[in-house]
Amino acid sequence: MDHLRRIGQLRRRLTRAGLPCILVTHLPDLRYLSGFTGSSGALAVTRRAARLFTDGRYTAQAAEQVKAAQVEIVKSSPSVAAVEWLAAQSGVEFAGFDPARTTVADLARWKAALPSKLRRGFLSALPSPLVETLRQVKDEDELALMREAALLGCKLFEHILGFIRPGIQEIQVAAEIEHRARLLGAEGMSFETIAAAGARSALPHGRATSALLPRRGFLTLDFGVILKGYCSDMTRTVHLGRPTEAERDTYLAVLEAQEAAIAAVAAGASCGEVDEAARSVLRKANLAEAFTHSTGHGVGLEIHEPPRLGAAQTARLLPGMVVTIEPGVYLAGRYGIRIEDMVAVTRAGAEVLTPSPKALIEL
Amino acid sequence: MDHLRRIGQLRRRLTRAGLPCILVTHLPDLRYLSGFTGSSGALAVTRRAARLFTDGRYTAQAAEQVKAAQVEIVKSSPSVAAVEWLAAQSGVEFAGFDPARTTVADLARWKAALPSKLRRGFLSALPSPLVETLRQVKDEDELALMREAALLGCKLFEHILGFIRPGIQEIQVAAEIEHRARLLGAEGMSFETIAAAGARSALPHGRATSALLPRRGFLTLDFGVILKGYCSDMTRTVHLGRPTEAERDTYLAVLEAQEAAIAAVAAGASCGEVDEAARSVLRKANLAEAFTHSTGHGVGLEIHEPPRLGAAQTARLLPGMVVTIEPGVYLAGRYGIRIEDMVAVTRAGAEVLTPSPKALIEL
Repeated sequence: MDHLRRIGQLRRRLTRAGLPCILVTHLPDLRYLSGFTGSSGALAVTRRAARLFTDGRYTAQAAEQVKAAQVEIVKSSPSVAAVEWLAAQSGVEFAGFDPARTTVADLARWKAALPSKLRRGFLSALPSPLVETLRQVKDEDELALMREAALLGCKLFEHILGFIRPGIQEIQVAAEIEHRARLLGAEGMSFETIAAAGARSALPHGRATSALLPRRGFLTLDFGVILKGYCSDMTRTVHLGRPTEAERDTYLAVLEAQEAAIAAVAAGASCGEVDEAARSVLRKANLAEAFTHSTGHGVGLEIHEPPRLGAAQTARLLPGMVVTIEPGVYLAGRYGIRIEDMVAVTRAGAEVLTPSPKALIEL
Repeated sequence: MDHLRRIGQLRRRLTRAGLPCILVTHLPDLRYLSGFTGSSGALAVTRRAARLFTDGRYTAQAAEQVKAAQVEIVKSSPSVAAVEWLAAQSGVEFAGFDPARTTVADLARWKAALPSKLRRGFLSALPSPLVETLRQVKDEDELALMREAALLGCKLFEHILGFIRPGIQEIQVAAEIEHRARLLGAEGMSFETIAAAGARSALPHGRATSALLPRRGFLTLDFGVILKGYCSDMTRTVHLGRPTEAERDTYLAVLEAQEAAIAAVAAGASCGEVDEAARSVLRKANLAEAFTHSTGHGVGLEIHEPPRLGAAQTARLLPGMVVTIEPGVYLAGRYGIRIEDMVAVTRAGAEVLTPSPKALIEL
């Protein structure tokens, strides 16, 4: 990971925003900019210097991980130390911070640590989150890791097809996916595994329970791994036994919607256009009401990142963004179907990172 | 869970603090007070009413889970709706919120939703976190769940003893613990499993890696489950092959420190006294420098809760608190040893929730 380059990009954003410096405290932002993976730290970036503050538990780890910033080990709060350091830099008249990642209590603590003449004006809430915006566009190193994470997800899906049978619990299916993920090198799962069978597949977030897989019915599997810090996210809906004609038609409509949304992904397309591509297919199939969520979301070091691919979202896709495409249809008391891939935005269109088959699988 | 009783307790705290009402947005606090487990919600509690705000994804779930508060489904932000509702209640001149659980951005959004005359004074940062303080003392329902969670941890430890052998990867050990936890009903793990063998046991937070278990050396296992929302946390250090005399002596010193700290736990004892009970044993063994963290922490719906059992902490233990007791010794480049139980504070002393054996196990 080229952290120096990322800090350089951040500096250009600072310059453009007329900011002398920034205080970064959100842990995924810290990891992105410096490689540091500890649970406590703050990064101060000025136009000339970058300094990571952490505590004594992370002395060895920070020395090993952080090359693009100086490391300072502190005994008190790392973020307070970072604020004090920034206030002492010459030519630094104020410092930006991300108000969505700063608690009211933290801000009060930071202000209390400043000389009284700086308390009013020194700390300045950023109008938009600079680091999160940078993180939306993945660089080549990140894309390589995200391909790897998505492929691990596909391997897990292939494996679980041989494990699924009527009469076992949803939770056994989830446990098997998670166990295999660990053995294949995942640090963990990126969210609580969804394994929802029969009528439970109509719950968009049906966490695995002790419910038994039926002889006949849909099973929705939505899961993701964390691999070297990066999250994967995929959904497949399979059918135990033979589906009815109507079930098969509904499945095909969801699949068509999903493929239409992927076809709409391209640099310059708006998030709302991608969402509408899926939604209009389902509208034609009289299923628009049953599609109760948005089409997708950004993914990376966190499982949910901007942009949101929802109705009327005007943000535009950029090359290097990685988003999920996951339309679904939920018929309460009957069944639900969702199909989800991860997709990288390219100049020409989209690179699908999740090659698992999507034709309806009957088990 | 008797949520009505908890909301009643909160109301008494409000009265004592001279507050007409409180806005609760931290999800574990919401779950504690109302039973609601959704990912988006806010709870407003006045002296007369309690109302939970959430969005349409949780209509069915909130109706099922929430009995002690009215439920209102909103289309916009639940916390903004809660602020607007509070401001419209008669006799409510200001509302408390927890500044440690509220972002600067949230507070700005809430203020913007208020009538202009209320923007300055209506929202008032609580000087201490009322709900978190209530949550420190577990009621009987909670203690029953925490015993169950801790016992599940003990079962996992017993199981893994038959799995550990030289030449397998740390990550295989972690994966086996996690898989078995899931099959026994855990929703997930309460933190990333630590399995650190040989010289890696000297890392206090040595997450499982692909490193192989040695023929001879310590293996530290630190793990916890989430069962019905409640976290367990336990550590055992075992030895592969025969330990040296010195290794055995160090183990015994850590065990003696751990037992001394448990013996010091009682209603009315200060957190610093419990820490000192462990620390003084290690000081006598010339290992004080190698004990680089505090002795323990509260645990419950979250894996780390107050109180902190660290040096010079003056907070006093109350009956019903559940804390970890986990002294450790870390000899860089050589080995580390940590032993951790969960302990409930009783009027008379302590109830150990983690009955797994602590005498040194040689495998």
